[in-house]
Amino acid sequence: MAGNSYGTLFRITTFGESHGEALGGIIDGCPSGIALDFDAIQLEMSRRKPGQSAIVTQRKEPDDVQFLSGIFEGKTTGTPIGFIIPNTNQKSDDYSHIKDNYRPSHADYVYDQKYGFRDYRGGGRSSARETASRVVAGAIAKQMLSDIKINAYVSAVGPLALETPYQDLDFSKIESNPVRCPDEAMAATMEDYIKQIRKEGDTVGGVVTCVIQNVPVGLGEPVFDKLHAELGKAMLSINAVKGFEFGSGFEGSKMKGSQHNDLYNPDGTTKTNLSGGIQGGISNGMDIYFKVAFKPVATIMQKQDSLNNKGEITEMTGKGRHDPCVVPRAVPIVEAMAAIVLADFHLINKTYK
Amino acid sequence: MAGNSYGTLFRITTFGESHGEALGGIIDGCPSGIALDFDAIQLEMSRRKPGQSAIVTQRKEPDDVQFLSGIFEGKTTGTPIGFIIPNTNQKSDDYSHIKDNYRPSHADYVYDQKYGFRDYRGGGRSSARETASRVVAGAIAKQMLSDIKINAYVSAVGPLALETPYQDLDFSKIESNPVRCPDEAMAATMEDYIKQIRKEGDTVGGVVTCVIQNVPVGLGEPVFDKLHAELGKAMLSINAVKGFEFGSGFEGSKMKGSQHNDLYNPDGTTKTNLSGGIQGGISNGMDIYFKVAFKPVATIMQKQDSLNNKGEITEMTGKGRHDPCVVPRAVPIVEAMAAIVLADFHLINKTYK
Amino acid sequence: MAGNSYGTLFRITTFGESHGEALGGIIDGCPSGIALDFDAIQLEMSRRKPGQSAIVTQRKEPDDVQFLSGIFEGKTTGTPIGFIIPNTNQKSDDYSHIKDNYRPSHADYVYDQKYGFRDYRGGGRSSARETASRVVAGAIAKQMLSDIKINAYVSAVGPLALETPYQDLDFSKIESNPVRCPDEAMAATMEDYIKQIRKEGDTVGGVVTCVIQNVPVGLGEPVFDKLHAELGKAMLSINAVKGFEFGSGFEGSKMKGSQHNDLYNPDGTTKTNLSGGIQGGISNGMDIYFKVAFKPVATIMQKQDSLNNKGEITEMTGKGRHDPCVVPRAVPIVEAMAAIVLADFHLINKTYK
Amino acid sequence: MAGNSYGTLFRITTFGESHGEALGGIIDGCPSGIALDFDAIQLEMSRRKPGQSAIVTQRKEPDDVQFLSGIFEGKTTGTPIGFIIPNTNQKSDDYSHIKDNYRPSHADYVYDQKYGFRDYRGGGRSSARETASRVVAGAIAKQMLSDIKINAYVSAVGPLALETPYQDLDFSKIESNPVRCPDEAMAATMEDYIKQIRKEGDTVGGVVTCVIQNVPVGLGEPVFDKLHAELGKAMLSINAVKGFEFGSGFEGSKMKGSQHNDLYNPDGTTKTNLSGGIQGGISNGMDIYFKVAFKPVATIMQKQDSLNNKGEITEMTGKGRHDPCVVPRAVPIVEAMAAIVLADFHLINKTYK
Repeated sequence: MAGNSYGTLFRITTFGESHGEALGGIIDGCPSGIALDFDAIQLEMSRRKPGQSAIVTQRKEPDDVQFLSGIFEGKTTGTPIGFIIPNTNQKSDDYSHIKDNYRPSHADYVYDQKYGFRDYRGGGRSSARETASRVVAGAIAKQMLSDIKINAYVSAVGPLALETPYQDLDFSKIESNPVRCPDEAMAATMEDYIKQIRKEGDTVGGVVTCVIQNVPVGLGEPVFDKLHAELGKAMLSINAVKGFEFGSGFEGSKMKGSQHNDLYNPDGTTKTNLSGGIQGGISNGMDIYFKVAFKPVATIMQKQDSLNNKGEITEMTGKGRHDPCVVPRAVPIVEAMAAIVLADFHLINKTYK
Repeated sequence: MAGNSYGTLFRITTFGESHGEALGGIIDGCPSGIALDFDAIQLEMSRRKPGQSAIVTQRKEPDDVQFLSGIFEGKTTGTPIGFIIPNTNQKSDDYSHIKDNYRPSHADYVYDQKYGFRDYRGGGRSSARETASRVVAGAIAKQMLSDIKINAYVSAVGPLALETPYQDLDFSKIESNPVRCPDEAMAATMEDYIKQIRKEGDTVGGVVTCVIQNVPVGLGEPVFDKLHAELGKAMLSINAVKGFEFGSGFEGSKMKGSQHNDLYNPDGTTKTNLSGGIQGGISNGMDIYFKVAFKPVATIMQKQDSLNNKGEITEMTGKGRHDPCVVPRAVPIVEAMAAIVLADFHLINKTYK
Repeated sequence: MAGNSYGTLFRITTFGESHGEALGGIIDGCPSGIALDFDAIQLEMSRRKPGQSAIVTQRKEPDDVQFLSGIFEGKTTGTPIGFIIPNTNQKSDDYSHIKDNYRPSHADYVYDQKYGFRDYRGGGRSSARETASRVVAGAIAKQMLSDIKINAYVSAVGPLALETPYQDLDFSKIESNPVRCPDEAMAATMEDYIKQIRKEGDTVGGVVTCVIQNVPVGLGEPVFDKLHAELGKAMLSINAVKGFEFGSGFEGSKMKGSQHNDLYNPDGTTKTNLSGGIQGGISNGMDIYFKVAFKPVATIMQKQDSLNNKGEITEMTGKGRHDPCVVPRAVPIVEAMAAIVLADFHLINKTYK
Repeated sequence: MAGNSYGTLFRITTFGESHGEALGGIIDGCPSGIALDFDAIQLEMSRRKPGQSAIVTQRKEPDDVQFLSGIFEGKTTGTPIGFIIPNTNQKSDDYSHIKDNYRPSHADYVYDQKYGFRDYRGGGRSSARETASRVVAGAIAKQMLSDIKINAYVSAVGPLALETPYQDLDFSKIESNPVRCPDEAMAATMEDYIKQIRKEGDTVGGVVTCVIQNVPVGLGEPVFDKLHAELGKAMLSINAVKGFEFGSGFEGSKMKGSQHNDLYNPDGTTKTNLSGGIQGGISNGMDIYFKVAFKPVATIMQKQDSLNNKGEITEMTGKGRHDPCVVPRAVPIVEAMAAIVLADFHLINKTYK
């Protein structure tokens, strides 16, 4: 399997299955001399971890990160930062029922076809548990980019969509509720809806919006590695993501040029920002904003037909403790991947000076 | 500038400015022994080139590709394929008016900020003319993947959206009209609309849908290099793209798991295909389909405020011959990038056997 | 710090300082379904570890490798193999004397200049302890390439050089003595010499010869990534290496073409093998052989001038338990790096079929 | 074929066969705003080109480089620099005799085995003609690194070795004679020897020494991408190279630590420089020096047995105009590859500040 690394100069490589001994990763390219705030890192882990509220999976995983290298006397040394996150809550027997079964809309079937062999416990490598390692790297990238502000929030849960422009939201409210929607009334409605969905044994999708502020002009490489192309890839690499749009997005495709163009102010800022802070793949200093669509979690607590490895259709009901809606826990993952992309481009951009 | 290469094993690197002597590129990693159909390559170039119909830019550029290496007696040798596309129609004087001006929603400003110096003629490297090189590489990738069928078409022009599912369309009609919409009635409506927009001196965005059929199971690398993540990056790297969604896309985020899951047939195919042919980042053998949103072209034939390099707002009107709507010419580019991504994963996948 | 990864498709990334909590790494790209022989892996570790004989450093480090992922029911799954090697014998106080001192011919000074900050304990990241992770990866690469035979041995210790051609040596004798020289008489002489050097508080360099047999034709990529260029880089990346030559090497530069050319047998083998098993960067099926020169270990148990970080020359005597001669323990490292290079090219070569 | 690119941030990709229409390449990552000296580039080309003196091949190839992009008004723009070198002197009929024959110690056989198909004219991609593209990139890298001085020279031709330390040579004499040996007496002896070898219809190997001065402290990445490991790979990737050593090299392996260690001066320079300007893979500010061994050219003007593609041994005599000794023309190639490696590390090193 290739594809377990992300980034060129700020580079993360991850390992680990959901039910192995540990997850972990290596962050290569982090500059030296950064005094790390370990509480801030653990806080990001807590935002992602299971069991944090009534509307997410009730698995108990402490998700404590242990750093093994690259840090000396509290500061980064410039050498690779190795870390592990022990898996303390593996209940392998929970998964014996899927050993020979391919769950619908899961990766079981394609893994078996591609590799001829798989760790079937809890999805193995295809489990979203892998994203814990991304959150560690993202938390460090955030500290490296301390001037840049990255705020993601839940802007839709199933059919419930927050239409308020991000400029009118108070990002300090994002963490005030378990949904991570900064509009408290909408957050309450979403929370009720998720609880209802869970009662039905069902799941629901949603949308995360991310806003990046205080970005210097010049991040991103034109042509293939445009800033928004890398952000898009990074987001689409998160489990369950089905779509990505930035700036005017799909709505922008309906518009005329005379409506869509962002006219300049004398200082190089623009009066409007349908471009979403990026021109020709390069940040222009305006806010970067984008939306990420997540499908509903595939494991539902209802009877469903599945396929076994003998080519037979069999009935199956989800077991274990799963998220009825993934977006509240996806918020820190979206922020983490955005931070990793920006950290990488930040380093690349230094080579032009 | 980094970022001028795409792919790991099937790898394209491009060069060239819109008004330099030539564009071109190098395709590295193409297997040996492929008897190339040069007419098919030139046909793809013709689908992208200016002046092909009344609704695209009327610039005259023959876009003839000259292969310089990697091919012997009509067959690929496995060595890098170098090629150039001479620029025969450079009218540099057309662009003197933008030498000191930053056009709204163009990359002029960010290039100057990032590099401190730019070739201002026709957008230089940020011009979509660069995509001609991608089409060459994509045409070769298509021949390498001869079993896989890639069909893109225009599914929306501004507010005019074709709602017919792709399964009900006749792809052989795509090239029957200048819009490249396989529904002929809708194509005529779109064509009239584009002509009207051009008369207004304006431009309009649109959407390209792409369908990939006959894909073997197993393409794509889990975790960061998921098949759809690379497809997304590849599409977002095309000029003017604002969004990407595959399978159920943004609509899927509104659904419940019980509605969204694709149940299996005994042969491993699925009854529905909301997944869009990809599970866990790996192709599952079903059709891959996705949508790509394009913003309206920024150059309009109307007066607009622009910024000059002294920090003054000045009035400017677009000159030259520009596309009122970019999506008809974007269709072969979308196909080319899809072919490049698939060719790369096809080669990577061979390493597992 | 970049540069902590090696390989394209079979790719190792390592982390860890000599006195941190653990070393470790991630092996990405190992094919699935390989039943691993863990004893064989640990055996390679034992060949590299300190304290294995009277002529190497007497530090006690068990160098037990713990696999955390990528292996299920004893077989590789195709997912990344994460592993750690705990550091159990860190005596940080041993190194307080070098905190502010730059030891001659060590990396202390350049690390401080490059990073502005370093983990000074035992050389930190620049310690050869990092190579333990390479040996893990190499041991797995060897198992993946089970048909290919890789044998390295000590061919010189200081001025004592074994002139016997490798064809006349019995590789099964390599492990019969602590020097790892297959000529037992020479091994005894070398052992005595190393003991004498140690008594003097001094160190001495040496040469490792490596022979790779049963290599299929076709490994290696022409032009920049020639097989011998990658082997050379891999060897030169090992601590203390000063030179690399393959086939006829430096001696070959003195020869005439009429003497140097390897004439063919009808089956494609050659009568002589001055080419060293590689033509144009590609393996030709003949034995690959090369030599790697190691400088003497820089830490000596004699008084020497060193530089402190105030720009003062100070006197220093080496402390701790160091190798008087590095080559006996370098043998498994040379083999490991050779195996990693071959594994990578083996996977790349599959993409041509 | 992979492996046609070199470098991470300053990255060259080359294409072209010896008898195709043109060679060429793309330089990606060159910073913007460098006013290029085109005469200096062409001068490097002239140092490499055939026909430059009586002791090299008498083929007539002007080797004029045409830049197609990345340069505007004489300065680099930061966009990729595409260039071609037309092949004006292809005499394909010269090579009909090798169409079905594998010349001894050439790459003909392995190419056929690996790719199943090859451009047999003049060695195709395996011809050293490919290095012309490297010289273009190296000439630009040199201009980017204008403070760093890179001087290579011929230090041995066959058994004739110049033993004078580089410190005692006058580098301004290198170009004063066709051998490129700065000791004029030795140069004359070498020249006579090469002429004698040519008369015999034979060829001879040699050694190029390279000295890099005025290097800042800090270039090179520890662990796998050590500065000397990349220099080694770069040199070993040049056609006909069999060995690389830096600093004390193979001789250093015979020494004791007490002799080999380079003691510091208070300013961080060292009294001796057996390290060759590199510690732990990172430049320490002292001179970098290394030797590169070249085998004798395989094509000789004498009868030799060769193998044909039916498995028959046949007699063959070299035709065409070949170099009796490759090292005089290799000097600019060694310098070019050194410059490319340093340019890349120079850019990477900027990311730490």
